[in-house]
Amino acid sequence: METIRKYFNHFVTLSDAEWTDLENCLSKERISKKQLILKEGEFCDFIAFIHEGSFRFYHDLEGEEKITAFFFQGDFVSNYRSFLTGMPSKHHIEAMDEALIYKINLKALQSLYDKYKNIERLGRLIAENLYLTVANRVDSFMFKTPAERYQELVARNSRLIHEIPQYMIASYLGITPETLSRIRARK
Amino acid sequence: METIRKYFNHFVTLSDAEWTDLENCLSKERISKKQLILKEGEFCDFIAFIHEGSFRFYHDLEGEEKITAFFFQGDFVSNYRSFLTGMPSKHHIEAMDEALIYKINLKALQSLYDKYKNIERLGRLIAENLYLTVANRVDSFMFKTPAERYQELVARNSRLIHEIPQYMIASYLGITPETLSRIRARK
Repeated sequence: METIRKYFNHFVTLSDAEWTDLENCLSKERISKKQLILKEGEFCDFIAFIHEGSFRFYHDLEGEEKITAFFFQGDFVSNYRSFLTGMPSKHHIEAMDEALIYKINLKALQSLYDKYKNIERLGRLIAENLYLTVANRVDSFMFKTPAERYQELVARNSRLIHEIPQYMIASYLGITPETLSRIRARK
Repeated sequence: METIRKYFNHFVTLSDAEWTDLENCLSKERISKKQLILKEGEFCDFIAFIHEGSFRFYHDLEGEEKITAFFFQGDFVSNYRSFLTGMPSKHHIEAMDEALIYKINLKALQSLYDKYKNIERLGRLIAENLYLTVANRVDSFMFKTPAERYQELVARNSRLIHEIPQYMIASYLGITPETLSRIRARK
């Protein structure tokens, strides 16, 4: 748990009382490979902090899996739009390997927001952080080549990138596995 | 100013003291048509609330203007990534008609965050709101046809949509003005 506290402290320094209350709201979950932590159509009532492991967002596009995002250790993972709006998720969230996450649910988080200004701030900083993640994704989709987007992914997690099946990375980049092989070979 | 207070009250109910302090930090600016409120390469040190008017985000793509977003009355407009990270903006923000905005700058906002929990909350809710805006934009780019994206724009502001030059809407949708005419004719 100290690792998590340190991580949150990057955003805002929590007092012992704030941390104890927050810690009591975090549920530690071990997730097995290929387990879905959220299904398409469900309401996402949590934000999870990834302590170990990696996740992918995908949805079925006419029978084919279309991958729209990867999340790695140290990231927050949530269908944040569903979390904020109460609308059903348009994506599945699946563990790509064994994972350890710390989840907080919406109601618990809201009562912490009410109770502590610092946790209200933590919520703002997480929202800002998730904003930057999705804004980078827009830019990446709109302005970058598949090769550049592959490099970005490598920069985010050079170790895990070798463990993700090639077809998943190709789906995310919107290219064929053959084109991905050529990009990888060119490096 | 009462309109602005009412608008902020949709997010969070501010006390008189909170509102007075916030109001003192808002600078009212009249913007003329085609005026840039932010240039590519500049740091965006403000969030502006659009009381009247509309704005577009664009950048130069090999000599051609590429439009990536429109903002209308009642929206917050900012290069929020630049605002959050201190990085230079990759876009221009230009008024498409005469506009009236209320700007708050980063330092003033940060001191209000420090002073008031409720304004910290307002900041979180604005961040969440901007998250949803950009997340919808990703979805729109990735999964929707130009015709569907045109309908979305109409739904956001049916009046202004008729005042925006056709070539700008076409640039935003990533289609030619001729294709846009066909979409409009089909309605």
